[in-house]
Amino acid sequence: MSKFGENILITGANRGIGLALVQQLVKTDGIKHLFACCRNPDGAKDLIELQKTHTNVIPIKLDVEDDQTIQQAYEQVTNILGTDSLNLLINNAGVYEEDGGSCDHPDRTAFQKSFDINSNGVVMVTAKFLPFVQKAADQKQRAMVANVSSETGSSGRAYKCDFNLVSYGMSKAALNYYTKMLSEYFKDSGIIFVAFSPGWVRTDMGGPNANLSPEESTSAVLKTLAGLTIEDSGRFMNRYGETVPY
Amino acid sequence: MSKFGENILITGANRGIGLALVQQLVKTDGIKHLFACCRNPDGAKDLIELQKTHTNVIPIKLDVEDDQTIQQAYEQVTNILGTDSLNLLINNAGVYEEDGGSCDHPDRTAFQKSFDINSNGVVMVTAKFLPFVQKAADQKQRAMVANVSSETGSSGRAYKCDFNLVSYGMSKAALNYYTKMLSEYFKDSGIIFVAFSPGWVRTDMGGPNANLSPEESTSAVLKTLAGLTIEDSGRFMNRYGETVPY
Repeated sequence: MSKFGENILITGANRGIGLALVQQLVKTDGIKHLFACCRNPDGAKDLIELQKTHTNVIPIKLDVEDDQTIQQAYEQVTNILGTDSLNLLINNAGVYEEDGGSCDHPDRTAFQKSFDINSNGVVMVTAKFLPFVQKAADQKQRAMVANVSSETGSSGRAYKCDFNLVSYGMSKAALNYYTKMLSEYFKDSGIIFVAFSPGWVRTDMGGPNANLSPEESTSAVLKTLAGLTIEDSGRFMNRYGETVPY
Repeated sequence: MSKFGENILITGANRGIGLALVQQLVKTDGIKHLFACCRNPDGAKDLIELQKTHTNVIPIKLDVEDDQTIQQAYEQVTNILGTDSLNLLINNAGVYEEDGGSCDHPDRTAFQKSFDINSNGVVMVTAKFLPFVQKAADQKQRAMVANVSSETGSSGRAYKCDFNLVSYGMSKAALNYYTKMLSEYFKDSGIIFVAFSPGWVRTDMGGPNANLSPEESTSAVLKTLAGLTIEDSGRFMNRYGETVPY
């Protein structure tokens, strides 16, 4: 079993940070199933290519905005896992609404979409898969839910929102709160709940001017996640594990 | 001019904390217009009754979920204000989704509604009326945007969510973040932006077991708001003005 456990599920795994997480994780021995969820697995070229050399990578259709696909993904994962548990759930799928997401000329639809993907999507996916993670905790295995957040969602560090970042920041602030709430609600579950900021990364979302490559970000993230204990549950942190204020 | 200025707008003013705020404010001298916004002003019996003795109370139709009513309210207020400004905007309208708003059996629609009223509604209303508040600040008058939040929305104090409080808490956490963001974005505007928790109040939302009457809560709130300065902008506080962590 790897330091993350045998079975891992990642949303938004076809590109950006999600894909980089999968690409890093396949280098780790002892991972039995790496459920790489995305909206359109048939078009996920990088995942399909990776699957040729790493048969533990399993692309799964899951759109965090669509509860029916969450249910279908759940059934598919259930069939594959059998009596196994899920050791790590990484809620990575997210959106950044560039148009209409600012506070001076807000568009309600942009705000709704930000919340529905970055906040509600995580709530729905987590509720569905948490029993599998609980099973890992009950078996004294590694059990963790890691939510990909952003320092932009830190009220303590809220800064001048030059780049239409308000809807994104609000949805991540809600996600951070949710993570903390889960850690309280399931305090005695043995599951580690954390929210982390991967940094500003050169992805479709982060843009070409970001200061980190996906590899730089995710290698730091995974090193941090591997070292977390139950004492860290409820924390909001950067990729190095340093605390970010809520 | 009152300690809050001459012109005030409150959303969700037909009942609960909103109504109690109006009932307290009419006791204050020097208020020219008290725009009491609600979804159905024709059915707002208490407001209509109050208007008989206090002609400065002006019921206005405004549903924070419906951008068209926000626009219509804006036009109505514009006509009444003329060249006047708005000194205080209290974003009070809110919802608590009792069913499906918890983290163990979440219903996406309940979460969407919480965000759309408690978070997006405030964004849309504030964007529309902020130019009036800015005008007050530009004229060196009192200028404040006060968002009714909840300690339930404090990540720093997130607690075991026995009562389906997750969707509510997430939406208030997003609101708190928005308030902080506004204070940064409009740092040099002269406008005070704050989020405050009114406490647990015996309203339709708070229920009969809450420890505060609407009068007890809102008299403390208004005393606090009256004493705030620009140095307080960006703070999240309880009804006594004591800091609540984000």
